[in-house]
Amino acid sequence: MTVSEGHGPVVGFVGGGQLARMCALAAAPMGIRVMVLAASSDEGTSEVTPNVIIGDADDPVALRAFAEQVDVLTIDHENVDHSTFADLEAAGVAVRPGVGALRFSDKAYQRVEFAAAGLPVPDFVVVDAGAADTAAVINEFAQRHGGRVVLKASRGGYDGRGVWILDAADVPGFLAGYEGAPLVVEPLLPLDREVAVLVARRPSGEIAVWPVVETVQVDGMCDEVLAGGNAGGTVLDPDLEAEALRVGAKVAEVTGIVGVLAIELFVVNGSVVINEIAPRVHNSGHLTIEGSETSQFEQHLRAIVDWPLGPTALMAPFVVMRNVVGGAAGDPRDRQAAAFSMVPEAHIHLYGKTSRPARKVGHVTVLGDDLEQCRERAQLAADLLAGDRFADAMEDSHDNREQSNE
Amino acid sequence: MTVSEGHGPVVGFVGGGQLARMCALAAAPMGIRVMVLAASSDEGTSEVTPNVIIGDADDPVALRAFAEQVDVLTIDHENVDHSTFADLEAAGVAVRPGVGALRFSDKAYQRVEFAAAGLPVPDFVVVDAGAADTAAVINEFAQRHGGRVVLKASRGGYDGRGVWILDAADVPGFLAGYEGAPLVVEPLLPLDREVAVLVARRPSGEIAVWPVVETVQVDGMCDEVLAGGNAGGTVLDPDLEAEALRVGAKVAEVTGIVGVLAIELFVVNGSVVINEIAPRVHNSGHLTIEGSETSQFEQHLRAIVDWPLGPTALMAPFVVMRNVVGGAAGDPRDRQAAAFSMVPEAHIHLYGKTSRPARKVGHVTVLGDDLEQCRERAQLAADLLAGDRFADAMEDSHDNREQSNE
Repeated sequence: MTVSEGHGPVVGFVGGGQLARMCALAAAPMGIRVMVLAASSDEGTSEVTPNVIIGDADDPVALRAFAEQVDVLTIDHENVDHSTFADLEAAGVAVRPGVGALRFSDKAYQRVEFAAAGLPVPDFVVVDAGAADTAAVINEFAQRHGGRVVLKASRGGYDGRGVWILDAADVPGFLAGYEGAPLVVEPLLPLDREVAVLVARRPSGEIAVWPVVETVQVDGMCDEVLAGGNAGGTVLDPDLEAEALRVGAKVAEVTGIVGVLAIELFVVNGSVVINEIAPRVHNSGHLTIEGSETSQFEQHLRAIVDWPLGPTALMAPFVVMRNVVGGAAGDPRDRQAAAFSMVPEAHIHLYGKTSRPARKVGHVTVLGDDLEQCRERAQLAADLLAGDRFADAMEDSHDNREQSNE
Repeated sequence: MTVSEGHGPVVGFVGGGQLARMCALAAAPMGIRVMVLAASSDEGTSEVTPNVIIGDADDPVALRAFAEQVDVLTIDHENVDHSTFADLEAAGVAVRPGVGALRFSDKAYQRVEFAAAGLPVPDFVVVDAGAADTAAVINEFAQRHGGRVVLKASRGGYDGRGVWILDAADVPGFLAGYEGAPLVVEPLLPLDREVAVLVARRPSGEIAVWPVVETVQVDGMCDEVLAGGNAGGTVLDPDLEAEALRVGAKVAEVTGIVGVLAIELFVVNGSVVINEIAPRVHNSGHLTIEGSETSQFEQHLRAIVDWPLGPTALMAPFVVMRNVVGGAAGDPRDRQAAAFSMVPEAHIHLYGKTSRPARKVGHVTVLGDDLEQCRERAQLAADLLAGDRFADAMEDSHDNREQSNE
């Protein structure tokens, strides 16, 4: 940590998407300098910092050269080469999250380790798609769980990709066409709802946890996040919230994360089971920018440069975030006036990304005293930004709240 | 407004200091692109946007070339060449604030126009330092106001510079050594306190006004700003607040400002009189970043690109801002951990400027339920960032709350 002397710490992001972008916006006021190793110049961070280097993060030489310019190395996304990161860590680079925590991005590894640590995970089995007995193993599992299974690629999936819900009879056909990482086989759970816990952890083990949020998924992609409920309408049962927070803190400890960690949980028959984790800032925490005393982006930076963490209480009784997803109707960067005219209190966050169907290009946050009103206002603002055709499409699909596995 | 089509509006700042920097940080999430014409590359904005052009804003050719790249031209500071701005405005460039509002930066012009509009201003007379009868005019004014006068250079002063408090007997000697703009002569008023009103105004005349804040000056420089008091301990008398808001709205109308305007007011015998105005975002509004539903920086941008304005209510019962002023003890960018360790709830804002004695290099904001506790916490965080020697110096000078004219 000698790069920074006299000018505040320098944090290097591998990847230049919206997560690095929102971290960069949180870093500047605190006197943290951000550098970015981006795959291309049109990633969102190039609008908010001049320190974007175009390079291939999987190239050990490029990554090492980048690491030499920073005090702390962190990630915009977890699709990074673990062996390169491990080499850097062994050479003394402050890699945060460390490789030990990054390994939990592998769903097979994660399920095995969490089960061993006594954490609540769904029943599961890990299979190699190419092994001779795989179809039989999955079939046996399916018969014990109502005749259907959820298959998850252990690596490389996101936003609903890499997840398949299949009848037992369709498994052999699927396997014949599948090439890729080992599969985690799980039951199709009857979900009450989905929630998420965000935890920040310093190298010392000090943690900060935000209030639990409810996440609403559409087509396997997070669409809406709800926080609040201490007074008036309740978002979450207090016992359930306490259990979710306990699981979140335990996951932070088991993974040894340094930085922010998101834990997505299924609520099944009133109890929580772990769906997924992300060893980084996360869509479920975007509402903390205005909605919490300390945003996930500021907190991540404070954790990885080893500064004391901030308080996490909500700034309003209820906070609702809604994603802005690209549609066929043009670019949200031409529609802010329309959104503000109907929802002047909306906090608009656009990511500097070209709008494409099903691509997250921004989000909107609304704070207030009434949950349903916050939801309506946030939806209205997001729909106005996304354009009408997307709004119509959303209305059609929105009642579908089956298990969606993001 | 054709530069931006498909990518959101482009706003050009003349000047690249902390006000442009904080605007740039507010612009990115809303999908507004910021460009900066800065005098040198070490101004604060170059850390937060790649679009910094180094050039002389007083050079009409450079300014016109810059203006051609943006949809709206605005300012980081009001020390700009009015005739060049007038030429641009005449050529159809959206200059915001317009030249009509910029003229009110001249204190002589401002006093005359405000008095004519029936706005509350101190008794005053404008003199030309070189005229034969100037000493006699000032002496006559002084005799009517207790034997002392406040002299203000009509142009070029800031942070207490360009303001002199003199006994009548010392005026001739002062005038002999003075060269510069005409002087505004005013009485030394017995101040109850100083307050400020921030107003944002769109081209249509639509305005938004924030709750009135109290400002605490030290050595002619704003040191602390207090907001809040609706419940519990009162910062401001409700009648006084209503009067201040009325004056703020009227000043916005009289000046024809487009963007944010700050009005600094003296409270004398329970009534407000106008001290100064600034046709831009202002130190007294920095606490709106976390302390208000819409920050002054976001609101300024919304006003100048002609988007609907946001709500301005406070986010907590009390909000306190304290400036971080450079001292002899090093750079605040090495001291964030110390500040967060004692005041984890502090919102730290550093400006990317080299620390020098008496230079504002950042500010700290604290929200809470108790005014005195917020003040103590904000002071502690600011002192820790500024370094101990500055903290000691502040303690010595802090009870001095005479008229300070910033």
